[in-house]
Amino acid sequence: MSHEAGILLGLFVIFVAAQLGAEIAQRLKLPGVVGEIAAGCVVGPSVLGWVQISEPLGVLAEIGAVLLLFSVGLETRLDDLKKVGRIATLVGVCGVALPFALGAAWAKASGFDTPNALFVAATFVATSAGITARVLQELGVLTRLESRIIMGAAVIDDILAMLLLGLVTGLQGGGGIDPVHLLLVLAQAVGFIVLIAVGGTQLMRHSSELLEAPVNPLSPLTLSLALCLGLAAAAAYLGLAAIIGAFLAGMAVAETRQRHVLERQLRPIAALLVPFFFVVTGANVRLSELASLEALTTLLVVTVLAVVSKLVGCGAGAWSLGARPALLVGVGMVPRGEVGIIIASLGKEAGVFTDTMYAVIVAMSLLTSVMAPPMLRVLLRERPS
Amino acid sequence: MSHEAGILLGLFVIFVAAQLGAEIAQRLKLPGVVGEIAAGCVVGPSVLGWVQISEPLGVLAEIGAVLLLFSVGLETRLDDLKKVGRIATLVGVCGVALPFALGAAWAKASGFDTPNALFVAATFVATSAGITARVLQELGVLTRLESRIIMGAAVIDDILAMLLLGLVTGLQGGGGIDPVHLLLVLAQAVGFIVLIAVGGTQLMRHSSELLEAPVNPLSPLTLSLALCLGLAAAAAYLGLAAIIGAFLAGMAVAETRQRHVLERQLRPIAALLVPFFFVVTGANVRLSELASLEALTTLLVVTVLAVVSKLVGCGAGAWSLGARPALLVGVGMVPRGEVGIIIASLGKEAGVFTDTMYAVIVAMSLLTSVMAPPMLRVLLRERPS
Repeated sequence: MSHEAGILLGLFVIFVAAQLGAEIAQRLKLPGVVGEIAAGCVVGPSVLGWVQISEPLGVLAEIGAVLLLFSVGLETRLDDLKKVGRIATLVGVCGVALPFALGAAWAKASGFDTPNALFVAATFVATSAGITARVLQELGVLTRLESRIIMGAAVIDDILAMLLLGLVTGLQGGGGIDPVHLLLVLAQAVGFIVLIAVGGTQLMRHSSELLEAPVNPLSPLTLSLALCLGLAAAAAYLGLAAIIGAFLAGMAVAETRQRHVLERQLRPIAALLVPFFFVVTGANVRLSELASLEALTTLLVVTVLAVVSKLVGCGAGAWSLGARPALLVGVGMVPRGEVGIIIASLGKEAGVFTDTMYAVIVAMSLLTSVMAPPMLRVLLRERPS
Repeated sequence: MSHEAGILLGLFVIFVAAQLGAEIAQRLKLPGVVGEIAAGCVVGPSVLGWVQISEPLGVLAEIGAVLLLFSVGLETRLDDLKKVGRIATLVGVCGVALPFALGAAWAKASGFDTPNALFVAATFVATSAGITARVLQELGVLTRLESRIIMGAAVIDDILAMLLLGLVTGLQGGGGIDPVHLLLVLAQAVGFIVLIAVGGTQLMRHSSELLEAPVNPLSPLTLSLALCLGLAAAAAYLGLAAIIGAFLAGMAVAETRQRHVLERQLRPIAALLVPFFFVVTGANVRLSELASLEALTTLLVVTVLAVVSKLVGCGAGAWSLGARPALLVGVGMVPRGEVGIIIASLGKEAGVFTDTMYAVIVAMSLLTSVMAPPMLRVLLRERPS
């Protein structure tokens, strides 16, 4: 089979697997995204081996995640987010501090030295906004108070995670930490986010005409897509997650008159590309590395720690809302998704993790991602707003 | 800059360059696609060097081409194509025979030995349906008699080009030609096309319900996209161009009740992905290899031969329609596009072409692709149907 045919066949398999997985999940009353991740695990190297992770697939998955968060941003209003600013910050900070502390303590107790233990702890921290955002979108509750807190906290979470990663990789290299450099990184990231979130939305609010070029009916769409790709690249350039840039781009465009048209036009694009993100996430897991009692025990401990620390940390941050909303916010922040996998890959490259430890972290990221959506769904279904 | 940021920045640059190129072209009364290809040439390695051709970009370009031909297929009815079957076959056959003969004669006269001369001739043959299809789509004339002949002839052309390529690579390897194998390849390809074009459309005509799943409003779209990816992979597996499979998938889906909804949903997807195809096509050209009088002379001769042979061959095939429609069909078949580039790459890998000869063939493919759209536009504008 030619290389071209192989790649196209891979795309076909991933796309169909995602549809089947989502369909099966929905019949089992689970969110579709759980089925898509599970489908990725099945067609990936661990089980059927029909799909190998390659660079083109990674890029497609990235584009899928970027477009997903862009569409979530499109359903988010800055004013709504501002109202929850204080509480979202609290959720973000507590939700980073507790998992990092518990992760470091566990890693230290398991025999890692301090720099490596901090690296392990960093993989406990980062929340993947993508998974939760998709579930909230599927259930149509993105405008709820808790949803807005989750999205706001995810932005704070990402800034802190990026700083922590800078910190632990600095320690890892043995070069120590340069506080000036870290402050600069922080200032850049916060500056970027504030500039886009406040300045960008203000600008967009007064320039709906900008999106309406006279010649081409697709122009508002293409301009928005260009903005989305540009801000995603800018975020990645500053060391933030690309999806944070895409989310901000969506929020800026949400202030224009064309938001509803754009939401409708974005739906088919997302239907084609977003499944690649979830299937590739699932395909990353290596089950064979987990086939020992020791590895499974580690996985269990790590997963429980990751879930409990995030749940308690974020829940504490949102406690002023009452127990139930706090629980909802906590659960919403549980999925580590692709962010955990990316940090684990860095750790593997740096020689901090063995293959087994890498597989454990990836499996933990996957488990937290698969676990949270059904819980979210139950919590949201039981008490509709 | 991180690898991730670099890739996203590349996507951003390509997407914006395509929009700017299309806009400028349209102000110059040229088809948008010419501007997109030129933009690719400008941001590519030859001029600014902002975009390097990488495997992920190649895959995105391929997906773009596949979706473009799928959307063209969606605007094509089998019954319309059947009516022009005889004449399209004639156009396809003459349009392959004459360029191949002239190309072989020129290559032989330029000092290539017979197997290599035939390989060079093969790069003269293949038509890229994508370029012309896009222009016809932009002008809204896909249902015209000449457009249908061009699309039908492009399918025939692709079968013959595939056979020729099998022939010349067989000769190249020195292994001689196995007529049984070639016949088998022919039978497979023709069988696939007839099966999908006739069987698939018949099936679809009676199963619009199939596309309307009860749970998900996107299901007709996702089912169609799955069919598109699947048939593109199958075509590539059989040695045909993937875009032929996508075109057939579009034709099959065109027989369902949902065709108009799907056309609308496909437009934003195409707006995002199709530009990658044209920009990457343009970025493939290496101007520095052409910076000698000899190379430029060769380019001029090769381009004139390629244009004249295709124009005369296809025009002769469509002569029964009268001079003007025959000219239109001939011009529509002129662009070599990515097909010429793919064959040239094979020739370079096989050691048949020097770097300069490779650059000449790529530049010829590009020139024919940039030349035909404005001519098509003038011919179609002057005598509206």
